[in-house]
Amino acid sequence: MSNATMNNGFNVVGTSPIRPDGLDKVTGRARFADDFHLPNMLHGKILRSPHAHARIKSIDTSAAEALPGVRAVVTGADFPPVKHELVNAGAAGVINAREMSENCMAKDKALYDGHALAAVAADNPHVAEQAVALINVEYELLPPVMDVRTAMAENAPVIHENFHPGSFIAPTEKFLPNASRLQLGNGDIEQGFAEADLILEREYTAETIHQGYIESHVTTVNWDNNDYVTVWTATQGQFGLRDHLADIIQVPMSNINVVPLEIGGGFGGKERIYIDPIAAMLSKKSQCPVKIAMRRDEVFRATGPSSGTYIKLKFGVKQDGAITAADLHMAYEAGAYAGGPLFLGILSATSRYNIPNIHIDGFDVIVNKPTMRPYRAPGAPQALFAVEQMIDELAHELEMEPIDFRMQNLARTGDRLVPGFPLAPIDTENLMETVKAHPHYHSPLEGLNRGRGLAYSMWFNIGELSSARMQVNPDGSVTLATASPDLSGTRISLAMQAAEMLGIDVEQVSPSVSDTQSIGFSVPSVGSRTTYSTGAIVCEVAQEILKQMGERAALLWETDADQVTIERGVFSNKAEPGQSITFNELAARMFETGGPISYHKTGNTQSFIPGVAAHLVDVEVDPDTGKVDILRYTIFQDVGKAVHPDYVEGQMQGAAVQGIGMALNEEYFYDEAGHLKNASLLDYRLPTSLDVPMLETVVLESPNPAHPFGVRGCGEISIAPPPAAIGNAIHDAVGIRLYSMPMAPHKVCAAIRERATGGR
Amino acid sequence: MSNATMNNGFNVVGTSPIRPDGLDKVTGRARFADDFHLPNMLHGKILRSPHAHARIKSIDTSAAEALPGVRAVVTGADFPPVKHELVNAGAAGVINAREMSENCMAKDKALYDGHALAAVAADNPHVAEQAVALINVEYELLPPVMDVRTAMAENAPVIHENFHPGSFIAPTEKFLPNASRLQLGNGDIEQGFAEADLILEREYTAETIHQGYIESHVTTVNWDNNDYVTVWTATQGQFGLRDHLADIIQVPMSNINVVPLEIGGGFGGKERIYIDPIAAMLSKKSQCPVKIAMRRDEVFRATGPSSGTYIKLKFGVKQDGAITAADLHMAYEAGAYAGGPLFLGILSATSRYNIPNIHIDGFDVIVNKPTMRPYRAPGAPQALFAVEQMIDELAHELEMEPIDFRMQNLARTGDRLVPGFPLAPIDTENLMETVKAHPHYHSPLEGLNRGRGLAYSMWFNIGELSSARMQVNPDGSVTLATASPDLSGTRISLAMQAAEMLGIDVEQVSPSVSDTQSIGFSVPSVGSRTTYSTGAIVCEVAQEILKQMGERAALLWETDADQVTIERGVFSNKAEPGQSITFNELAARMFETGGPISYHKTGNTQSFIPGVAAHLVDVEVDPDTGKVDILRYTIFQDVGKAVHPDYVEGQMQGAAVQGIGMALNEEYFYDEAGHLKNASLLDYRLPTSLDVPMLETVVLESPNPAHPFGVRGCGEISIAPPPAAIGNAIHDAVGIRLYSMPMAPHKVCAAIRERATGGR
Repeated sequence: MSNATMNNGFNVVGTSPIRPDGLDKVTGRARFADDFHLPNMLHGKILRSPHAHARIKSIDTSAAEALPGVRAVVTGADFPPVKHELVNAGAAGVINAREMSENCMAKDKALYDGHALAAVAADNPHVAEQAVALINVEYELLPPVMDVRTAMAENAPVIHENFHPGSFIAPTEKFLPNASRLQLGNGDIEQGFAEADLILEREYTAETIHQGYIESHVTTVNWDNNDYVTVWTATQGQFGLRDHLADIIQVPMSNINVVPLEIGGGFGGKERIYIDPIAAMLSKKSQCPVKIAMRRDEVFRATGPSSGTYIKLKFGVKQDGAITAADLHMAYEAGAYAGGPLFLGILSATSRYNIPNIHIDGFDVIVNKPTMRPYRAPGAPQALFAVEQMIDELAHELEMEPIDFRMQNLARTGDRLVPGFPLAPIDTENLMETVKAHPHYHSPLEGLNRGRGLAYSMWFNIGELSSARMQVNPDGSVTLATASPDLSGTRISLAMQAAEMLGIDVEQVSPSVSDTQSIGFSVPSVGSRTTYSTGAIVCEVAQEILKQMGERAALLWETDADQVTIERGVFSNKAEPGQSITFNELAARMFETGGPISYHKTGNTQSFIPGVAAHLVDVEVDPDTGKVDILRYTIFQDVGKAVHPDYVEGQMQGAAVQGIGMALNEEYFYDEAGHLKNASLLDYRLPTSLDVPMLETVVLESPNPAHPFGVRGCGEISIAPPPAAIGNAIHDAVGIRLYSMPMAPHKVCAAIRERATGGR
Repeated sequence: MSNATMNNGFNVVGTSPIRPDGLDKVTGRARFADDFHLPNMLHGKILRSPHAHARIKSIDTSAAEALPGVRAVVTGADFPPVKHELVNAGAAGVINAREMSENCMAKDKALYDGHALAAVAADNPHVAEQAVALINVEYELLPPVMDVRTAMAENAPVIHENFHPGSFIAPTEKFLPNASRLQLGNGDIEQGFAEADLILEREYTAETIHQGYIESHVTTVNWDNNDYVTVWTATQGQFGLRDHLADIIQVPMSNINVVPLEIGGGFGGKERIYIDPIAAMLSKKSQCPVKIAMRRDEVFRATGPSSGTYIKLKFGVKQDGAITAADLHMAYEAGAYAGGPLFLGILSATSRYNIPNIHIDGFDVIVNKPTMRPYRAPGAPQALFAVEQMIDELAHELEMEPIDFRMQNLARTGDRLVPGFPLAPIDTENLMETVKAHPHYHSPLEGLNRGRGLAYSMWFNIGELSSARMQVNPDGSVTLATASPDLSGTRISLAMQAAEMLGIDVEQVSPSVSDTQSIGFSVPSVGSRTTYSTGAIVCEVAQEILKQMGERAALLWETDADQVTIERGVFSNKAEPGQSITFNELAARMFETGGPISYHKTGNTQSFIPGVAAHLVDVEVDPDTGKVDILRYTIFQDVGKAVHPDYVEGQMQGAAVQGIGMALNEEYFYDEAGHLKNASLLDYRLPTSLDVPMLETVVLESPNPAHPFGVRGCGEISIAPPPAAIGNAIHDAVGIRLYSMPMAPHKVCAAIRERATGGR
């Protein structure tokens, strides 16, 4: 049997059909975690530390336990010691299970404002809240450590007497007292600077930010009398959640079923675990299912924001525009426990440029803030805010067009990147040329205090393990199940790939996301991986389904399977010209030939698939208020192949808006005692539709050879360029350079004043 | 790589571990269909015909629709016409989709007392019931046809102007006016009777009976705005339910997800569809999820009971005890639509005997009762009530011990059965010899009006398609999912087979039952198939898992996979003696070698695997009241291999109790107008613990070569012998022979009176 070779014209891929989950989401009928109820379900509430750093001397829960309606109270003492402190979690690296457990529920010390200390399950949320207020905790206050430079000072208060270096993807060495260190490099950095005609050194800072997903964390957990634990929640990765939960509550992984419900935004922040183990322990103790729903302030105080950073750059260039050397000192907040986004920050910092001599000194720094977790292209916006502004400054110093300077130093397919692997195939030049040829690039920008900025980004898709199962039903419809929660329309983008491969209409394919009892392991929906990696596995499964259907056709025709050809959903008999059967006709006859066909595969796909993007932005700066308005914004992005162009554009625009938010407004405000002062959506200033114009998109498609249709992930990269692009545009507009993110009005005003009074 | 050959000593199979669903069931925490709630869920109630046979002239729902709180009203007019009337449903045979739809909701005619005519969804069940009472139906009453002989009379009222012959497993020819006919035979029947020294002719009747499951039918259906339909219910077959629902509501199968919840008894009666399409149409119309819970009277009036029958036998024997000929006229009620258990009744009637000349004339007869559905060994108790009493009478006439008469005519492996296939391997002699050697058989039975009876039964397991998925988790725990709802402890019996095959503890395997989006197709949990057929597929999946784990061990050891041997969960390197790794250690290292291993298979297994049972019963008959007391009861049954002996015994005992119920008490009472008069558990007399002594069990194990551990299904067969065994015991006790089932006190009294006054 031979499959028809895929021709270049797609039937389904590249169209924008209606997603199967769409109508229910807009009509309010979609079922999110907070819509989930069970009989006898209790409601859990959590007591959280008001102190950023404190030793817990005692917790008295007796008054809470005595309150009528209270069914269970748990503290850190109820959580079992972990079996193995360090756990190999595959793509997620080595996880410190003890620290993960203590991040969910503190034992000896509270490490940040909001750290969970105790929890109550009661008949209703009001009683639970009352009971929480009755818990009495005795603290010994310790000095809070609120930024990376303080934390890395020699006399800094020690947050952990003992800790394991951060483990998010890349392990790092320990660096006293509160940091882990990762050094990477190429070439000879001293030689590189010696060759330079011009050397610039700059320092950049960024504040802690949050993913700002609209749906807060909600979980319902039932620990039954047979020690089977079921979790109904929104998560980016049901298997990661299951495995982490197993490590914390000490139940076999196979006894836990995590049922992923609809998710109201994740952006990396719903990949780890917070309230599920607490609900589990309350359920175990109360022998009832327990729901916990975080309030918004809890989401800000006690989930996984993205790192504040301190980055110091030293770049050397020749007069002709060649970068000869780069030295990067990059310190990322880890939060309360090691393991922030340092490695991805390093990977994104310079990988798009071919710099012969480079040294990166990276630090994952423990501070008294919530434990940092991935946020859409983790670490990249902070890194690019530094590097892409440095590139702009260097170009100006060299009196070159910044885009030409970038093109001169462009990394190309096969170039060795800083972490040591070669750049997988991608057409980086085409992106730059497309920007240069675009009307926006050439349009005049008239008016006072207006400027244009460009930033260029490269980001990588994770591949790794994905699972998919497909079944052909007797009516020709196809059931498609994956283990990849749908954050962004991936059900339709996966169904489209299945339909394309099978040669049928996308409406025939019903995609769904399975629970952990029902499908093979998968890496979570992170790292721009789902449409690419799970999609590639879906295509493999579809190929196997076609093969088996060809065998069924051969059975009907009493011929050999290799006589059956398949072309766009029609099976033909080579041995008997004119004999053919459609996919649907063959499906209807499966009961004659062995029953419905079903196939499941858990497979690996290639990681570090590059994507590139360039953002071009026009701004106007109000010199009196410091407010920056976005006038025009164009996103250029290479997505390999846009499976569902509407949603690809949505991803580009959504990422850019988040990048714009962190560029101009978003930040955690802590007071000196380490109290978070803006833990609400009124005070944490997310961008709104009033803050941005229509974001134009230019979709490029240089195929990814690791995917049968050439797909690259597209979800993350466009969050990274906005801060630098806007920083460069502000400089173009009013001649100031901002080194601190967000570039909030007060900083813009201060810089304008400083420039007027002769500062840098 | 080679697997260790399975030795005869099992580690797990044959033990009786605690089932993983047990504690929650005894503590009330298990989640049944009625425990399921959704936000905005409405409650549906159904208007049912009070008439057994009536033309529906009009239905006025306006008053119901106007009632505050009512959200939707549907009638048959809301149900779409089916696309294809006849649907090939694989193992379930050809289904008539139009009739299935009209059985759920009548269109032109009401065909039985309880036939659904309209339904209401409202904010609560009380309003829904009020609204149902406001629906006004105009009927044209038609003469009801309440038994098979009336229905087959030449001048019988015609129930269907047009119908398709019954399709449950075997198709039959149409036989006017209300019946389908199936004739089967071997040899030359006239020749056979000519050779006989003795010929007996007898007539037997049985009344309609119900499975009597304690949990009534409850379903919650959500038809969402994207035309995805989710069903949460208890069912014996989520795929059958899905496919039937798709046929009725005209939605692609892949858009329907049937989530099977815990089931409170099925016994065949939860294999088909009743209220789910009604809830679906109400959900579609109301745009809310809709729950329908049947009341007990609805369960009796409008689900799928088992057939009343009329059976006429003519048997010829030689003086030496050889049966020379058998002529069987077997008429089974089909209920309102064709497709009762006729074929299985025929299959069970004589298959355990080797009768050279046989003719069976079978009739599937439409009557104005609910459509008959399978009930544990469908059709067999009625057939055996006739044949095993005939065997007893013949033995007495020949002055032979009934057991010796049976042994003389015993069917053995390879003998050709009536439907034309040879008997698959089974040791039928051993069963008889075991009975003869048992103390019960030899124990004296003293006292007045006491007697002993024996009946012998052969029944067959369905094989067909099953699906299983297994995953090895990093902690060594194993996730096992199947598509087979657990009626009787099959989660543990499947987990045990997985553990046995993998060489690990059964506690490491967590079994679950998946929904239709999450696993491959499977034939429902019917036909004593789950532990045998799904078990065989579980074993195949476990073998593949071991193979893949061996390959992982080879990767770690940098050797070839064929150098790895596996013995009871330990992998060893043939190339390097002493190098070995346990299952759990290897599982913990899977992330080093490609991630967790997962494998799914949908596969076929052999059908018509025989099982045999003999029941020996001692009774005492009270000649004044006609009450029959069971004094002692021993069940002998060949189960191939008892995977979980405790539950095997439970199956044997549970089936026997149901058989005892139908022998002595259970029946539908209809009045002449066709109204069911005993639609409650007070009036439908199920046996209780007071009605039976401890039922002794003798488990025989002649291995089934179609299963790796020799397992045979054991769930059904022991329901079939009790009526005949008790009938034979009554005859032994008081010299009367009862030809009508149930052998209720009034019939016993009448027979004793008749005998006293000189009747037969």
